[in-house]
Amino acid sequence: MKPIFKTVAIIGLGLIGGSIALEIKRKNLASKVIGVSRSVNNRRIALKRKAVDHAYPHLGDFLQEVDLVILATPVGTVISFLKKIQPFLNPKSLVTDVGSTKEEIVRFASKFKKLYFIGGHPIAGTEHSGMKAAELDLFKKKKWILTPTVSTPASLRNRLCRLIRAFGAQVVMIDAERHDRIFAAVSHLPNLLAYTLSNTIETLKNPQFAKFAGSSFRDMTRVASSSPEMWRDISLSNRVELLRVIKQFETEMEKFKRILSRGEEGLLLKFFERGKRFREQLS
Amino acid sequence: MKPIFKTVAIIGLGLIGGSIALEIKRKNLASKVIGVSRSVNNRRIALKRKAVDHAYPHLGDFLQEVDLVILATPVGTVISFLKKIQPFLNPKSLVTDVGSTKEEIVRFASKFKKLYFIGGHPIAGTEHSGMKAAELDLFKKKKWILTPTVSTPASLRNRLCRLIRAFGAQVVMIDAERHDRIFAAVSHLPNLLAYTLSNTIETLKNPQFAKFAGSSFRDMTRVASSSPEMWRDISLSNRVELLRVIKQFETEMEKFKRILSRGEEGLLLKFFERGKRFREQLS
Repeated sequence: MKPIFKTVAIIGLGLIGGSIALEIKRKNLASKVIGVSRSVNNRRIALKRKAVDHAYPHLGDFLQEVDLVILATPVGTVISFLKKIQPFLNPKSLVTDVGSTKEEIVRFASKFKKLYFIGGHPIAGTEHSGMKAAELDLFKKKKWILTPTVSTPASLRNRLCRLIRAFGAQVVMIDAERHDRIFAAVSHLPNLLAYTLSNTIETLKNPQFAKFAGSSFRDMTRVASSSPEMWRDISLSNRVELLRVIKQFETEMEKFKRILSRGEEGLLLKFFERGKRFREQLS
Repeated sequence: MKPIFKTVAIIGLGLIGGSIALEIKRKNLASKVIGVSRSVNNRRIALKRKAVDHAYPHLGDFLQEVDLVILATPVGTVISFLKKIQPFLNPKSLVTDVGSTKEEIVRFASKFKKLYFIGGHPIAGTEHSGMKAAELDLFKKKKWILTPTVSTPASLRNRLCRLIRAFGAQVVMIDAERHDRIFAAVSHLPNLLAYTLSNTIETLKNPQFAKFAGSSFRDMTRVASSSPEMWRDISLSNRVELLRVIKQFETEMEKFKRILSRGEEGLLLKFFERGKRFREQLS
């Protein structure tokens, strides 16, 4: 297969950036892959695993020859990298990212008149992080959301889609606002509940709670082991939609409290039945 | 080993009652085991699996010869069975139960002057139910809470402890009120959050939500597949403590909303770090 891009630069060699690099090199999807990471360790492992042809600690003139830049840095830093790459960028090149929120990033990118940007969000990951955890097939059969805008040339969009499909992922195109509304509900709220539940039990300062914390507590708080920095940044970036869906959650909780306080057996049964029905239709 | 009890009656041959029956028969912990279940199917399977010596559809005079009655019916029915067994009960026999809440049941039992009752709660279970799902070793290395009161003779209490330890379980004695406070926090609240989250997403009526509901949503709502009747009854029975811990949860959520609305980066990071730290110290 002819390479889809000439030179790809991946900024950030963590789990996602590193796995993308591996996919591109192993499947020969670009003639050259350049990795950029401040971490000596991630650069060293990336070179050793032949995930990149070159690895640099900083942005630089090498970006001139790049036709695809993938920002794979933490979501809270994408906007600052969009600014930082400007002086080096070839105006014909395409830029994409892998951040978990999209509206704020896409809106910021649209301010640059001479930037071709398509927001991206691969729905993939493991509990591990860093270039050492990068793996082939991480994106296989996973959804990869793209949020193109009218200003993106169709030819560039199509090449990016081909690249992502070559990873084995399924491209889903939706607009950035809708993305953030959906993920506030199905991802950001559930994760927030896990942290809030954990904090609630911690606050009660009862040593017996930890002793009896059974499988339901463990299941419900498992996701509270991921990066606090990431959740700080996601919350800030998706503030409006997250607050909106929290309000909806609170409405449901108020309803439960009301029917429980009144001892409404029939309505309590309906409350739990509805939750069970929706959950079961998913899996 | 000499049998610990002469004749044990197990009222309710579901997963828990059936597994108790199997343990007692296989390990010869009683001379005779009688099962009581309205379900023809559960009675038939219990006899076939040799979990019981006799199986009856209703309570009856056979309870006269029983020295241990185990109420293994749904938690919402324990109180009514405490009443129903009275006319048949041998006043020397011990009665225990396996309900997920304890305070209300223990308080009710204490009204009967001539009843030896010890509340019980084995912290065990699977996602399956019924006598067909009953299994040996279900209680192995699990906690089994007992809530004895001053009116329980020590000799009876000790025999019940011996029986439960013979199942491989660890007996933990706490008072009923404390039990309900602990389980409101570590079990009932987490389960309620799962149902409430599921209801929240259902209410939003967005067909795309189900499509993108990823692993965190699935993890957080897994427990919302258990019995709505059970959660109705647990909620009602532990109403006061559950409402108390919901209030604590809401205080944490208010805090999050406040710091998110203000964009307090440092406090947001602390919020997520605290939840992660408490979760990690558990596992």
